[in-house]
Amino acid sequence: MSDLEETKPHESVQDNLQLVIALLAKHRVVEQLVHKQEMPRHELVESLVHKQNIVGLQKKLDTMHPADVAFILEALPLEDRLVVWNLVKADRDGEILLEVSDAVRATLIADMEPEELVAATEQLDTDEIADLAPDLPEEVIEDVFQSLSTEEREQLRAAMSYPEHSVGALMDFEMVTIREDVTLEVVLRYLRRLDDLPDHTDQLFVVDRGDILKGVLPIGRVLVNDPDKLVAEVMAPEVTRFRPGQMADEAAQAFERYELVSAPVVDDHGELVGRVTVAAVMDYIRDETESDMLNLAGLREGEDIFSSVWKSAKNRWTWLAVNLVTAFIASRVIGIFEGSIEKLVALAALMPIVAGIGGNSGNQTITMLVRAMALGQIHSANARALFMKEIAISLLNGVVWGGIFGVFATLLYHSAPLGLVMMAAMTLNLVVAAVFGVFIPMLMHRLGHDPAVGSSVLITAITDSGGFFIFLGLATWFLL
Amino acid sequence: MSDLEETKPHESVQDNLQLVIALLAKHRVVEQLVHKQEMPRHELVESLVHKQNIVGLQKKLDTMHPADVAFILEALPLEDRLVVWNLVKADRDGEILLEVSDAVRATLIADMEPEELVAATEQLDTDEIADLAPDLPEEVIEDVFQSLSTEEREQLRAAMSYPEHSVGALMDFEMVTIREDVTLEVVLRYLRRLDDLPDHTDQLFVVDRGDILKGVLPIGRVLVNDPDKLVAEVMAPEVTRFRPGQMADEAAQAFERYELVSAPVVDDHGELVGRVTVAAVMDYIRDETESDMLNLAGLREGEDIFSSVWKSAKNRWTWLAVNLVTAFIASRVIGIFEGSIEKLVALAALMPIVAGIGGNSGNQTITMLVRAMALGQIHSANARALFMKEIAISLLNGVVWGGIFGVFATLLYHSAPLGLVMMAAMTLNLVVAAVFGVFIPMLMHRLGHDPAVGSSVLITAITDSGGFFIFLGLATWFLL
Repeated sequence: MSDLEETKPHESVQDNLQLVIALLAKHRVVEQLVHKQEMPRHELVESLVHKQNIVGLQKKLDTMHPADVAFILEALPLEDRLVVWNLVKADRDGEILLEVSDAVRATLIADMEPEELVAATEQLDTDEIADLAPDLPEEVIEDVFQSLSTEEREQLRAAMSYPEHSVGALMDFEMVTIREDVTLEVVLRYLRRLDDLPDHTDQLFVVDRGDILKGVLPIGRVLVNDPDKLVAEVMAPEVTRFRPGQMADEAAQAFERYELVSAPVVDDHGELVGRVTVAAVMDYIRDETESDMLNLAGLREGEDIFSSVWKSAKNRWTWLAVNLVTAFIASRVIGIFEGSIEKLVALAALMPIVAGIGGNSGNQTITMLVRAMALGQIHSANARALFMKEIAISLLNGVVWGGIFGVFATLLYHSAPLGLVMMAAMTLNLVVAAVFGVFIPMLMHRLGHDPAVGSSVLITAITDSGGFFIFLGLATWFLL
Repeated sequence: MSDLEETKPHESVQDNLQLVIALLAKHRVVEQLVHKQEMPRHELVESLVHKQNIVGLQKKLDTMHPADVAFILEALPLEDRLVVWNLVKADRDGEILLEVSDAVRATLIADMEPEELVAATEQLDTDEIADLAPDLPEEVIEDVFQSLSTEEREQLRAAMSYPEHSVGALMDFEMVTIREDVTLEVVLRYLRRLDDLPDHTDQLFVVDRGDILKGVLPIGRVLVNDPDKLVAEVMAPEVTRFRPGQMADEAAQAFERYELVSAPVVDDHGELVGRVTVAAVMDYIRDETESDMLNLAGLREGEDIFSSVWKSAKNRWTWLAVNLVTAFIASRVIGIFEGSIEKLVALAALMPIVAGIGGNSGNQTITMLVRAMALGQIHSANARALFMKEIAISLLNGVVWGGIFGVFATLLYHSAPLGLVMMAAMTLNLVVAAVFGVFIPMLMHRLGHDPAVGSSVLITAITDSGGFFIFLGLATWFLL
């Protein structure tokens, strides 16, 4: 919060980006002229203008919030990005590295000397260093460890040890703790000795001598209650608390449900080991939904929009390869029925419709289920009812849409039997989609996989190959 | 925050759901027995057990957080849901209605009398009533207006007037305001006269006599600074502030970027009209990403998982119909080339691969762009570079994957020319996917549409029909 004084509010982020781009363009013109030696005589003048531009740019960057500098770095092509990066004050490097996306962070770190990296971490808290650690070279991490106090070293080791999607990975160590047997007056005096409260301090943590969490004291209560009251009298003894090993998703749900700003994290003995803030939770939710979206679209991870063609292509190949394998299988299914298609070529034109409706409907079912499962709404008592409902919808859709396309096929190819086969195949493929649309996410969940990843590819593979097989099979049997 | 004392923390939400289901099951057994009159003699005993169950359930519900009751209501089939709903204390109806999803809310409201609805709104703040208003019957809204004070009526009218995705719609009116010419001591005394601070009060708003916002005073500074200091000395004069008419997305980005807990909303004259909290922003982000996901999967809105087959089917038909129209067009494109397929039936088996790779690759490009556009990273200076990069990736993919499938086709059908046509068609369709993958979201953005909605359907339509046309066209031209 304390940053807000020195930095401009966000209304100007887009304007700042435009300004930086304009300054960089001027900078580049000068560089080119000097490089081509087309302006040897005016060099002095030009380099003066040049310097003014650079100084102006640097001043601008210094007034900006680290998150806004990060935004600008992400929006610039590599060359310009590094020009700007080298103008950023060294003591802000760490904060900015925390804010940029993984892909862009890699390009910035690649441009830095080990000493610069060590210096950059020196401004950061241990939980923040742990966030950067996976991207730092081994030697830098070792140097960083050397520079820390014993307590910090312990914190960093702990923070680095928690798996990626655990509460421990979201945790920070900036909590203010108090005892329950003191008056609010004492708490107020204690707080007044601090320079500032840590960000997102909406409550103080009440602990005993053994650091066992006894409750929390919301800041509001410190303010509205009589200073003579004891902490024990006004604190909230029962609070939402987390374990470091708990899934971060659970914490995120609790933060949304109970509208929390911060929450304590305790170990198995009830000892306070850290806290989670709404800022960390929002970052986490953003990252999670983003990676879900990327996975659904067949991207492995977020791309730096200015990364090389080669890097981008590699990011996209995993899913492209999976999709091509399933397309190849579908193609071989069609291959089995080449004889039938030769005799009745209308089948070739109609078959993508049968495959398509299955894929679309199956994806609808899966999305509904994945969402309900993520919310914990599905349990053994209602799974059967849900399954029957999806089957009923698929039959209804089969009658309606199958009927419409059956009539189309009949009219287009002057063959009522073809129309009937079309309708039957669409209905059957819709039922297949409903069955696997319920079955796949449930199976994935039971096997401990995230049902959001891969379910869509799998259902499409099944309804494509299945749709071709059902339609061409029925046609071969009944029409030829 | 104050709810946390009386209610259990979230660890037990799933357990509570299981418990409620078990109690409901017992309840139902009794109901059935009584209904079938199979146990007339033990009626008295049974109804005692029955009553105990119901009382137990009611007690359980009373201890639960409104968000958890909402969760349980969402996870129950309609009949059980209404049993539970009628056991909830009337004075909590309003809070719970706010928490449930739109679809489930409709089922609950349908079960309530107008007077109950008016009573339910009486516990709510005006901004919360505005959130419920679209789902309430006309007559109820009129009664609610009657029951409000003039100031509240004004607030409600204002809150209801803001469009859905504006800052005004996220805003609440629970801010604590102070003057800049008083000491912190005076502020502390003023606060002590309040019962409690509003939730998410991380800062007090400093205003002048005309309610013009002069700055904010973070709560932490009230606590750590000398009580003799003036508000003007310690307040943060420049703050992130919003206008009620601004897009909610901008506020959400600022909350994430600057890790805010609350922020003031001012009108054109700088007058403080409300505030936005991180809780409202998180709700908004959750709703937005959810509706993006649903749209991507072809669902119009979130479904109540226990809604009727008919309602669910209607929710899914819009997108299903759109997809079927595009499938029909693709089918007619194939129809044009039926003569070619008759002569070379291998084309029928290979064509879905060409269409498929275009759709997958196009969706990758679109997702990348939609994401970068949402972050504001795309501007005229880099659009061309991005376009060229996507084209380059598509050519690379064409050579690699087109090459592999060209070899497959050659080996499977013993025809090198067919393999070459396959490779050429895949490459061309990938280029089409890249061109439209960049073009569609940019055009949508320029036309003021949300590029996330519909882009995926459109690109798939183009790469399907385009892929069939390119492949069958090339084959007809070169092979036949």
